Amino acid sequence: MLHASPSQPPEDETQDLHSLRMSDSNVTLSLSDSSESSNNANPTSRTSSKYGTPEEVQMAIEELRKAFPGEHRVETGRNTLKTYGSSENSYHPTSPHSVVVHAESTDDVVKVVNISRRYRVPITAYSGATSLEGHFSGYPSGSICLDMSGMNQILEINEGDGDLNCQSGVRWEDVNRILKEKGIPLFFPLDPGPGATIGGMIGTGCSGTNAVRYGTAKAEWFLNVTVVLPSGKVIKTRQRARKSSAGFDTTKLFIGAEGTLGIVTEATLRLAPLIPTKVAMAQFPNVENAVSAVQEILNTPYGPHIQCVELLDDHMMAAINSAGLVDQPYPVQDTLFFKIQGAAESIEQTSKIVQEIVSKHGSSRFEFAATDQEAEDLWENRKYALHSTMAAHPGTRCWTTDVCVPVSLLPRLVYETKQDLAKTGLKSTIVGHVGDGNFHALILFRDEEELKIVDDAVHRLIVRAIAMDGTCTGEHGVGVGKTEYLTDELGEDTVELMKTIKRAIDPLDLFNPGKLYPGRHDDGEKHHS
Amino acid sequence: MLHASPSQPPEDETQDLHSLRMSDSNVTLSLSDSSESSNNANPTSRTSSKYGTPEEVQMAIEELRKAFPGEHRVETGRNTLKTYGSSENSYHPTSPHSVVVHAESTDDVVKVVNISRRYRVPITAYSGATSLEGHFSGYPSGSICLDMSGMNQILEINEGDGDLNCQSGVRWEDVNRILKEKGIPLFFPLDPGPGATIGGMIGTGCSGTNAVRYGTAKAEWFLNVTVVLPSGKVIKTRQRARKSSAGFDTTKLFIGAEGTLGIVTEATLRLAPLIPTKVAMAQFPNVENAVSAVQEILNTPYGPHIQCVELLDDHMMAAINSAGLVDQPYPVQDTLFFKIQGAAESIEQTSKIVQEIVSKHGSSRFEFAATDQEAEDLWENRKYALHSTMAAHPGTRCWTTDVCVPVSLLPRLVYETKQDLAKTGLKSTIVGHVGDGNFHALILFRDEEELKIVDDAVHRLIVRAIAMDGTCTGEHGVGVGKTEYLTDELGEDTVELMKTIKRAIDPLDLFNPGKLYPGRHDDGEKHHS
Repeated sequence: MLHASPSQPPEDETQDLHSLRMSDSNVTLSLSDSSESSNNANPTSRTSSKYGTPEEVQMAIEELRKAFPGEHRVETGRNTLKTYGSSENSYHPTSPHSVVVHAESTDDVVKVVNISRRYRVPITAYSGATSLEGHFSGYPSGSICLDMSGMNQILEINEGDGDLNCQSGVRWEDVNRILKEKGIPLFFPLDPGPGATIGGMIGTGCSGTNAVRYGTAKAEWFLNVTVVLPSGKVIKTRQRARKSSAGFDTTKLFIGAEGTLGIVTEATLRLAPLIPTKVAMAQFPNVENAVSAVQEILNTPYGPHIQCVELLDDHMMAAINSAGLVDQPYPVQDTLFFKIQGAAESIEQTSKIVQEIVSKHGSSRFEFAATDQEAEDLWENRKYALHSTMAAHPGTRCWTTDVCVPVSLLPRLVYETKQDLAKTGLKSTIVGHVGDGNFHALILFRDEEELKIVDDAVHRLIVRAIAMDGTCTGEHGVGVGKTEYLTDELGEDTVELMKTIKRAIDPLDLFNPGKLYPGRHDDGEKHHS
Repeated sequence: MLHASPSQPPEDETQDLHSLRMSDSNVTLSLSDSSESSNNANPTSRTSSKYGTPEEVQMAIEELRKAFPGEHRVETGRNTLKTYGSSENSYHPTSPHSVVVHAESTDDVVKVVNISRRYRVPITAYSGATSLEGHFSGYPSGSICLDMSGMNQILEINEGDGDLNCQSGVRWEDVNRILKEKGIPLFFPLDPGPGATIGGMIGTGCSGTNAVRYGTAKAEWFLNVTVVLPSGKVIKTRQRARKSSAGFDTTKLFIGAEGTLGIVTEATLRLAPLIPTKVAMAQFPNVENAVSAVQEILNTPYGPHIQCVELLDDHMMAAINSAGLVDQPYPVQDTLFFKIQGAAESIEQTSKIVQEIVSKHGSSRFEFAATDQEAEDLWENRKYALHSTMAAHPGTRCWTTDVCVPVSLLPRLVYETKQDLAKTGLKSTIVGHVGDGNFHALILFRDEEELKIVDDAVHRLIVRAIAMDGTCTGEHGVGVGKTEYLTDELGEDTVELMKTIKRAIDPLDLFNPGKLYPGRHDDGEKHHS
């Protein structure tokens, strides 16, 4: 039995960062307190009276207690409701839930969904709680938080087929740990932030540092999912063959849907062979040189050996130095961290080519870890980069956002964003999955006034990314934080298609309302015809 | 301007095979002639009277003529209607269309869709015409065939981003040819049968020999698509960033939907770096040994160097020998063809490892092409395998089907299928994308009586594959040929979810009716609630 602690949150290596923040900070944010009226207007609804009255919410809770008589299966304690409905990782407005139910099986989920439907009480699935965009906030008229973190079993490993079946509450690190413990030389290559669970990774459409080599959650790593629909029906989207042309793949509907179309209870994960890796690092005079080096490397026959390539900007390198994590300070320059995979001699050859190319693009220093331990230490420096950002600036809090653009436009976006952030006077660092055109900006603030400045800067960053044929989020999702950008990014009719599907599958709008879909439009109720 | 000849059909290397068949065969098939009543009951309809009357079909044709005044833009010649509505590549029942319209732009498609909706005349998109499962058959009460093959322009190549935008009527070979001619060292790695176009590849959810290394159409090769919806609205599903978490990806809705949810007019394709390749070949005592060798190879650190690995069974090797295509006959054994990619020394090392492993698994012979020409010749032998099948058995016709199962079950499936086919007394060969668990059976027949035997054998093969957690089709799609298997494979409620989406997007059921969705169920009109 694995353990997933519901109160342990953060995504994208922000874990240490935020635990640090929670103890150091005594900032209170009025935005978080005045939220209930502002952000929860439901995009697909006529009126909010479609949901159960307070009395009906109480009846639903009573019925949940009857359905789950065990101790602590149904919770309504004030602190619990707040913990499960808000995140220390985002500064978006939130509401507490009305009740938390701990699911242990797909049947449990069906029971809760049926009660949710009977009393028209919205339902939000919850597991790793690592979201940065308010995905698991409660609904102001009352909501059920369905805690999936207890459904954390690996059910079947098919080594010969390179796949495994598991419950959705299992964490990706635990999947890989268990495979390692069993001596199975396979791994699951999606690697979002620590603590993320399979269900949340599906809901968010996650990726991580391995995406440059293995793609994202939207590729073919989820062979099938078992889903409870708003109707209470349980479907399995596909069988276990690696590929199928038997119609459009309904698995993909639930990837990135943020729990608004169904609640995933199980998934079959495709696994990849575990391949030896080494880590290298190179410094550059600027982001443009770093990105052009990456593009040249990826286009050589050695490109497929690049498992990860991460950009840390000069500010981040300074933060690492200040945080005292390294014996020798690094040059304060835009830096690439590489993870190179392959057989020993392939890694050696790839390393030579990488060294040649980065040197051609102005890199003054290329450090290639000689031993496994050295490689691990080097990669840790990247992993704890965010921790360093905080440690270097005690007493601050941090807003993390992410965008993604076509790779050739990344240098311009980073340049313009750094210029813009410099004008705000706030400290910030940048880390990027540079092979994909995806980067994260971490912006530090101390008080409400600075928070407003951050909020505005994030807005300008997103507008800038969308104007470059990019997206408001490369891997963190929409949640409540980015709904307003979806129409600009995708166009009104594409968003309307998404809403058409939402209405068809969840006509009562019970599954995680207020997330993902942008607010009401004039044509909000219009069907395609 | 590229050329896509509408009458040139086949998928999956069956081109030569079928042109040969067309000239050699004078078999007539009653199934093809008596089709109109049997296969076109629409799964999502209450009655077929929802479609336009013969008079309304005529009015639609008149309106199309007005909308497209140019010469030959609108065709109603008897032979044309038959050609565009039936395929020499499948033996499923078909109907001719009422009219063929040649589209030249997205606006043209909108016009046709609007006329289709006004007169309730079904519309079927058509381009490469390589389908094996009757995807572009007409509808018996009257239908518009929308020929997309003239929309074959590459619109923009973004070399720095590794992507290109093109119209949907372009063939994948032409995409790669043009990139090569321009000296751009990138390629589009989906490689279905010759002549397939981007639109058809999206509709079918295609893959091909490169899937073991690059995945299928359902992975992340289509960054976005421009689609005309049944409402006549034009959407672009996403921007051009390589990844996005901005909600579920509506691009994926259209991949594998067989033109039933929208008509794709443009697509942005992600490209992969062109990497040098070499070809090798190894013979095995049986399929089981061949498959276990493949699995072991793919799980080494050299696995990612395997771009393709194709299985040809002993019958197929015998056919190649009989067809007189080779100077020296090959051993009549189950054989693997490898395409190995990488830098020169990586290929050399990979080749050594492959040789070691195949030898361990009982391979008596491993032939590694020393030169590019030799590699090409060797790969040609695989490519023309189907041609050989026909050439070795003059006067026959050939039914090609495909299934896919978890890789470890492939040997058993192939074994049982070969036993079963042997009992029928018919000649057959097998080729497989063995790294994915996908294979094609090619079964030869001479007359209607034998066709019935083939039909039954294909049925048993599909039932066998589904029972092994597999799919009725790995890459050829459902069309009219495999609708009956979808419920067994996916479950009634998953199919109902697909129908719910179909009804929400295409409430008049105008887009390619009779394809993909299985026939009427008792709950055919029930919505999830």
